[in-house]
Amino acid sequence: MNPNFEEIGREFVKQYYSLFDNQDTRLGMAVFYNAESSLLTFEGKQLQGALNIIEKFSTLGFKNINRVITTVDSQPMLDGGVLISVLGRLQCDEDPPHEFTQIFILQAIQGSFVLMHDIFRLGLHDLP
Amino acid sequence: MNPNFEEIGREFVKQYYSLFDNQDTRLGMAVFYNAESSLLTFEGKQLQGALNIIEKFSTLGFKNINRVITTVDSQPMLDGGVLISVLGRLQCDEDPPHEFTQIFILQAIQGSFVLMHDIFRLGLHDLP
Repeated sequence: MNPNFEEIGREFVKQYYSLFDNQDTRLGMAVFYNAESSLLTFEGKQLQGALNIIEKFSTLGFKNINRVITTVDSQPMLDGGVLISVLGRLQCDEDPPHEFTQIFILQAIQGSFVLMHDIFRLGLHDLP
Repeated sequence: MNPNFEEIGREFVKQYYSLFDNQDTRLGMAVFYNAESSLLTFEGKQLQGALNIIEKFSTLGFKNINRVITTVDSQPMLDGGVLISVLGRLQCDEDPPHEFTQIFILQAIQGSFVLMHDIFRLGLHDLP
């Protein structure tokens, strides 16, 4: 198991959202996913493979996201991967703020990490 | 990959909470976890192994939980396991209701599933 799982989790979360939260860099996220195997569940919609995932991201209309990360919980996996759970709040352009939750699994492949699993959900309630 | 991942996810979530939400059955959850390897992160506190996890559960003072599951998102894993993400709201005894999020990874070992990863967080906000 990777002893640096907490640092890897925090660092990955920072990289992921720095690309996602700006429309100009969002499609660059293709580098995180495996071409065939990566899975994204985005608000209940299931997608597989980097191309399908990036196509989904390209349909998201908002330009910028203001995001505050509340907690990052990471666990090391027996195969060298890292499980990451994120809670926070986000605001898309001028929309009301929402809580969100996101789960990542990074799989260790030949010395680097591939984002094999990604699940995103908005909370049900608008925030004050 | 297990084609029944959605059914497995829903069924596991039902079993898990039916034991957890009643103080009389909570310690029976030892059957879900591996003695040495299972990891629980409970509101940021990390525990390893069935015994430590069940000891933690034994310190939880509430008798009953009223719980509503809002969403269960499951994904199949390449090694035959299942990743499960749960959102919902819960109320412990007479406390105010809270949103919660919980992540499970079931690992397939010799024809059955072991709960290898478990991450629980309450939302930050009281609910109306």
